[in-house]
Amino acid sequence: MKSRRFTLAFAVLGLAVMFAWTSRAFAQSDPLPSWNDTPAKQAIVAFVGRVTNAGSPDFVAPPDRVATFDNDGTLWVEQPMYVQLAFALDRVKALAPMHPEWKDKQPFKAVLEDDMKTLAESGDKAVVEIIMATHADMTVDEFTSLVADWLATARDPRFKRLHTELVYQPMLELMKYLRSNGFKTFIVSGSGVDFMRPWTERVYGVPPEQVVGSSIKIDFIMRDGKPTLFRRPAINFIDDKAGKPVGINDYIGHRPIAAFGNSDGDLEMLQWTTMTDGVRFGMLIHHTDAEREYAYDRQSHFGRLDVALDQAPANHWTVVDMKRDWKVIFPFEKQ
Amino acid sequence: MKSRRFTLAFAVLGLAVMFAWTSRAFAQSDPLPSWNDTPAKQAIVAFVGRVTNAGSPDFVAPPDRVATFDNDGTLWVEQPMYVQLAFALDRVKALAPMHPEWKDKQPFKAVLEDDMKTLAESGDKAVVEIIMATHADMTVDEFTSLVADWLATARDPRFKRLHTELVYQPMLELMKYLRSNGFKTFIVSGSGVDFMRPWTERVYGVPPEQVVGSSIKIDFIMRDGKPTLFRRPAINFIDDKAGKPVGINDYIGHRPIAAFGNSDGDLEMLQWTTMTDGVRFGMLIHHTDAEREYAYDRQSHFGRLDVALDQAPANHWTVVDMKRDWKVIFPFEKQ
Repeated sequence: MKSRRFTLAFAVLGLAVMFAWTSRAFAQSDPLPSWNDTPAKQAIVAFVGRVTNAGSPDFVAPPDRVATFDNDGTLWVEQPMYVQLAFALDRVKALAPMHPEWKDKQPFKAVLEDDMKTLAESGDKAVVEIIMATHADMTVDEFTSLVADWLATARDPRFKRLHTELVYQPMLELMKYLRSNGFKTFIVSGSGVDFMRPWTERVYGVPPEQVVGSSIKIDFIMRDGKPTLFRRPAINFIDDKAGKPVGINDYIGHRPIAAFGNSDGDLEMLQWTTMTDGVRFGMLIHHTDAEREYAYDRQSHFGRLDVALDQAPANHWTVVDMKRDWKVIFPFEKQ
Repeated sequence: MKSRRFTLAFAVLGLAVMFAWTSRAFAQSDPLPSWNDTPAKQAIVAFVGRVTNAGSPDFVAPPDRVATFDNDGTLWVEQPMYVQLAFALDRVKALAPMHPEWKDKQPFKAVLEDDMKTLAESGDKAVVEIIMATHADMTVDEFTSLVADWLATARDPRFKRLHTELVYQPMLELMKYLRSNGFKTFIVSGSGVDFMRPWTERVYGVPPEQVVGSSIKIDFIMRDGKPTLFRRPAINFIDDKAGKPVGINDYIGHRPIAAFGNSDGDLEMLQWTTMTDGVRFGMLIHHTDAEREYAYDRQSHFGRLDVALDQAPANHWTVVDMKRDWKVIFPFEKQ
C-alpha cells in the first residue's frame, strides 16, 4: 500500500509540476511573433506592462484601456488607392448602363475610361460626387450586401488577393495582444462606417459597434409597411483629421490611451490621445518596404505622412519602419 | 485507519452534494425578483429562453443579442420634468449673474421666476435655446464635471432623492439578466449623450461607448498648446422618434432584437426592432402607479404614450403595468 500511495503522490506532484511549467511556457510565448525584436515592439510591450501592472502608479483600469486604430494604411493596404474608392469606381461601371449621361460627364467619364490621371486631378469634390452616386439611394441592407458581395470577389491589382487578405499580420497580433490585456480595440477611420462594419469582426475581431467612420445621411422610413433605413446622398460626418477626436468623443465617449495611425489624417487622433497627463501610446506605421508592400510618405496621394512624421519625435510617438520592424506583412506569408 | 478513511470519504461526498445543491439553488434563483409573476415577466423569460437555447430554431448568436433601452421614463423617473431639463434650469440660475439681460428675456425670464406655466407654453424652440445657453461654450471635460457635480447634490422635488437613486429596480434586474444571457445592453435616449455617459456605467452597468443620445456640435481645437474638444451651441443629432433607429444604425451598427421604451419617442425604435423576421421583443413601460411613482400616458407633457400604446397589441409589444407588474419601483425600497 505504501509504495502505491507514493506512486500516486509522485504522479500528482508530476502533474502539478508539468501544469505549472506549461502555464509558464504559455505565458512566456511571444504574443507578437511577426514583430522583429526592435524598439517598436519593445515600446509596445513596455507600455502594456506599465498600464496593466496593478502595483504601478501608471496602472489604468480596464474600462479606460481604449485603443483606437486607423484602417487604411494602418490595418490594410491603401495603395494604389483606398479600397473604398476602388469599390466606388467598380460601382460606377456597374451602374453606367443606367446613366448614359456619364459617358460625357466628369468625373464619371474619367472613371469609365480608366483615366486615373484626370480622376486624380479632379480633387475631393469629384470623389464626393462619385461616393454620392454609388453609395446612396438604397437601403442600409442593400448597401451592406453590395459591400459583402464586392469584397468576396474583388482582387487587388498587384497581389491578386482579396482585400480582406491584405491586412497586416503584425497589427492583427497587436490588436489581439491588447485585447488579451483588457483593452477594447476600436477602428477610427476616414472610410465609410457602413463599408467597414460588414467584415471587421471576422477579419479584425472588432465588432460593428466598435467601428467609427465617415457616414452619409440616413432616413428612417416606412416602405410597404416595413420599417426601412434609407441612404441619402448627403454627408453626415467626415471622420478624418480633426474629425477623428470628435468622432472618438461622439461614438466612444472615452479618451483613448493608445492610438495607431499612418498618415496626416491621424495627426489629431494621436495628439488627442497622447498630449495629456498619464502614460499614453502613439504609433505611426511608416510604409518603407517597396518590395513586400509599398514605400511612401510625404509625397503620396493616398495616406500622405508628412506633418505627423515631423511631430513624432517631440510627442514620443513610436514610428514603425515596416521593412525593419515587421517579420511578415500579410497573414498568408506565415509559415 | 479504515474508519478515518470512511470519515474522509463521507466528508468529500457531503461537500460534493452540498456544492451540487448550492449550484442548483443558485441557478434556479429568480433573476427578476422585483417583477411580479405576471405575463410581462413571463414574456421576458420566454423570449430569453428562445433566443439563447442553442438547439432552438430561434437561437440568436451572442454578437447579435443587442438590446436597446430608452432612459427617461424607462430606466429612471421623467416627472415632473426630464432630469436634463432640471439641470438646464439650474444652470440658467447659476449663470444668471453673468447674463443680466435674461431678467427681461424669454424663455430665461420664466426660468428665473420659476414660471413653469409660461415655460411649458414656450415650446421646443425655447428648450433648445435654454440647452444651447447652458450646455455649450465650454470644453467636454468642463461639461462632464458640471454634470457630475450637479447629479451628486440635486434632489428630486418629490422623493428628496438623488436622481441616480430614482432608477427602476426591475429594469436594473432586467438589464443584468439580459447581460448574463449574453446580451449587450445599450441606452438609446433623446437626452444628451454627454449628460448620461458620466454615470451610466456606475448606475446601470452600461459603459460610455454603449450610450447613444442627442448631441451638440463639438470642435477639436488646440488651446494653449493642448488638444481640446470644445462644445458649440448647435445641434448635431436628435436621438428621438425617427432619429432612434438612425442613431442605432449609426452608433451601434446592429439591428436590435429587443427594445424597451415608454413613450411615443420610442415608437420607431420598437418598430425597427420588432417589425422584421425572427423572434423579437418590444416592451413599453406604462406608468400606472400614481402612489409609488406617477400615472400618465396620452396627455402627459413629458413622456407622452399615445400612438405607441395603440400599436402595441398588433405588434405583440409587451406593455408593463407598473402598478401590477412591479413588486418594488426603486432600489431603496428593497428590504
